[in-house]
Amino acid sequence: MTSLSPPLHRLTASECLELMAQDRLTACALVEACLARIHERDADVKAWLALSDTARDEAARLDAVPKAARGRLHGLPIGIKDVFDTRDLPTTYNSPLYAGFRPSADAAAVDMLRAEGAIILGKTDTTEFAACGRDAATANPHDLSRTPGGSSAGSAAAVADFHVPLALATQTGGSTIRPASFCGIFGYKPSAGLVSREGIKIYAISLDTVGWYARSIADIRLLQEVFGITEGLGEVPAPEVPLRIAITASPYHSQLAPEMRAALDAADRRLRIAGHHVSRVDLPDGFDSLDRSHRTILHREGAAAFRNLARRHAGGLHDDFHHRVENRDNRSLADLKTAQDDAARARMAFDAWAAAYDAVIAPSAPGVAPPGRKPGDPVFNAFWTLLQVPCLNIPLRLPHENLPVGITLTAPRYDDVRMLRLADRLNAALSAG
Amino acid sequence: MTSLSPPLHRLTASECLELMAQDRLTACALVEACLARIHERDADVKAWLALSDTARDEAARLDAVPKAARGRLHGLPIGIKDVFDTRDLPTTYNSPLYAGFRPSADAAAVDMLRAEGAIILGKTDTTEFAACGRDAATANPHDLSRTPGGSSAGSAAAVADFHVPLALATQTGGSTIRPASFCGIFGYKPSAGLVSREGIKIYAISLDTVGWYARSIADIRLLQEVFGITEGLGEVPAPEVPLRIAITASPYHSQLAPEMRAALDAADRRLRIAGHHVSRVDLPDGFDSLDRSHRTILHREGAAAFRNLARRHAGGLHDDFHHRVENRDNRSLADLKTAQDDAARARMAFDAWAAAYDAVIAPSAPGVAPPGRKPGDPVFNAFWTLLQVPCLNIPLRLPHENLPVGITLTAPRYDDVRMLRLADRLNAALSAG
Repeated sequence: MTSLSPPLHRLTASECLELMAQDRLTACALVEACLARIHERDADVKAWLALSDTARDEAARLDAVPKAARGRLHGLPIGIKDVFDTRDLPTTYNSPLYAGFRPSADAAAVDMLRAEGAIILGKTDTTEFAACGRDAATANPHDLSRTPGGSSAGSAAAVADFHVPLALATQTGGSTIRPASFCGIFGYKPSAGLVSREGIKIYAISLDTVGWYARSIADIRLLQEVFGITEGLGEVPAPEVPLRIAITASPYHSQLAPEMRAALDAADRRLRIAGHHVSRVDLPDGFDSLDRSHRTILHREGAAAFRNLARRHAGGLHDDFHHRVENRDNRSLADLKTAQDDAARARMAFDAWAAAYDAVIAPSAPGVAPPGRKPGDPVFNAFWTLLQVPCLNIPLRLPHENLPVGITLTAPRYDDVRMLRLADRLNAALSAG
Repeated sequence: MTSLSPPLHRLTASECLELMAQDRLTACALVEACLARIHERDADVKAWLALSDTARDEAARLDAVPKAARGRLHGLPIGIKDVFDTRDLPTTYNSPLYAGFRPSADAAAVDMLRAEGAIILGKTDTTEFAACGRDAATANPHDLSRTPGGSSAGSAAAVADFHVPLALATQTGGSTIRPASFCGIFGYKPSAGLVSREGIKIYAISLDTVGWYARSIADIRLLQEVFGITEGLGEVPAPEVPLRIAITASPYHSQLAPEMRAALDAADRRLRIAGHHVSRVDLPDGFDSLDRSHRTILHREGAAAFRNLARRHAGGLHDDFHHRVENRDNRSLADLKTAQDDAARARMAFDAWAAAYDAVIAPSAPGVAPPGRKPGDPVFNAFWTLLQVPCLNIPLRLPHENLPVGITLTAPRYDDVRMLRLADRLNAALSAG
């Protein structure tokens, strides 16, 4: 085998697959490189709650599989947010109530990855139940004093810090996109309902969405295809046709920090330089209630999700969950119905509004990662989740900034495939300058 | 202990709780009576896929619990549809792929029942994955040649045949309400999202709803309270005020069999005799597309749910599931979006329309239970599930009919508590004559 540069742990998943197809890389070598990186870094980064003790054996088994029988994720080490059940690794949801818990089956998404030859390298830290309660211990690899964002803290940090090329996440408010922004990686939340959430701890059943992280758009697409998101909805403009791009921070402009204002300005400038038609616009009227609607649904559905734990563990369950079960904010069923109907109307309104553009770009967070370990403010994510639209975080490099920021590429519901096809063009333009 | 009449296995849950509170009944005696009934009848009825071998021990343990420390379901044997995970009983989803499967945790709803002192007596037969594929083997207790309805076949038959006073079900199309109609018992599907569906095999994530069976409205309410559905939305009319009742078989009138036409006429007559104001009316325009919308969502969400099984078990998975995963009916993502938006508009339209009435009554099935073991036609259930409204099957006794029929009491979304409060008055009127 010829020696490779860059080091193995820095390769993307797609690069690894290509090298394995050329017999220039083995799953065993890749797993060793990832584990070495983790052992070098994780005392500081704290991305992992558990590491597989069978990953090396699994890699050796996979290396012996003939090429024609290999899966689409052959030999790729993947990190799994510890809210997905795994049959061979403890699954704690970062809750003390589940210390040492061992599910007897994989979550559907984990099962799918394994069926395609992925190696589940371990479980990554998360905000408790991907909701509230206990924070992840994970640090932002770009500045250990800062948060990587949450709830998918460990998965985002593990991909950003080159522990694994891919990791599974979830998003109920902003739990996939915001950590991607804080950590400077690609993060993708598909349209609602396209990937099974079976075997994942429930927070808000109508909002919980499986997502994932990678260091390239090609890698994001690789999992998109594995999960069967392959069907086009809109037309993809030809490469020579300039794109009509909307940039918006509405309806929550006022919550932007200076570095995110600079990021949107930079995106605007770079996209124009690349020849695209950029409009700075506002979303339709009425969207400013969506953050409140999201929170109403979140808390009421959360009450159903945590009711049995609250019944069993009066003292042992974090007060944040009792708060929801007891409905301490007095969100009524009438409020819930209003929130759901407002969301349904806004979904239709957004899809109609967005049809005038090829791409919609928005902030992925108020600003850069704040100090500490809190998950961060989901104000620029939660209403997109409520709208059920696809979101891709595209990391931006800004001059004179040490910390990454990210912007959200979004599109009408189910327009995931077209959105990801445009992402390469947009990313090329955004990376220039 | 004084001897009781009727026999113990025929008591309702509420009657059992009262007798236990009076020290006139023990959990041990109740479990023995239920098991004896099962052993007498289940070779014919085939309601059960597995029976607990720890139920007697659990009953003895519960009998020793001081009254002040007892749960709200103290000592009640309950049947669980075998799509709910149970930590101490095999969970097969009636799929050959899961023969002998043992989950390591209870589904949230099962955990809640146990936390309140219920005894999980066993797992009941179901249509495979509560979806399609393999039928339940269960017979209708009123005529063994006929279906009890599905997918919650075993739970409905077990309650109807006096094996247990209560059983858990689920509904994605008509899987709770239709078997209740065919078996002549009360069946309740709450408004969407009020009860956690964690630990239940997923079919269509936005439609799957936990429901339950009982032989009295008081028993339906007992579980309603345990699951925290206690908050009123609408006003309950005073007992002396006549109710404004809508009876409708729209938009699918044409699919009514004569016996269900007779049932609706009988309901109309009996409710008028009781002094209520009855209107025979049609639902708002546009509702005739809801059955198609339901099926589009069902099949597309089903594709996500069964994708990993289809990937792993090309030959071993029933073709019905491959059908959905491969989207053989060519339901596009644009169709899915249209179906969801039509459903959202219809939810708002139904709630506005229904506000003119105190109660809405509709058929629970096209007619009586058909011969065979098929689950039956969900045309009179699926659109209510899609509308997310509460539904209660009220069994009717018709002269000159050997088989039961049932009617659906429904109400606006989240109006569950008011609906159940009115159900006693309606049932009293409907039972007369």
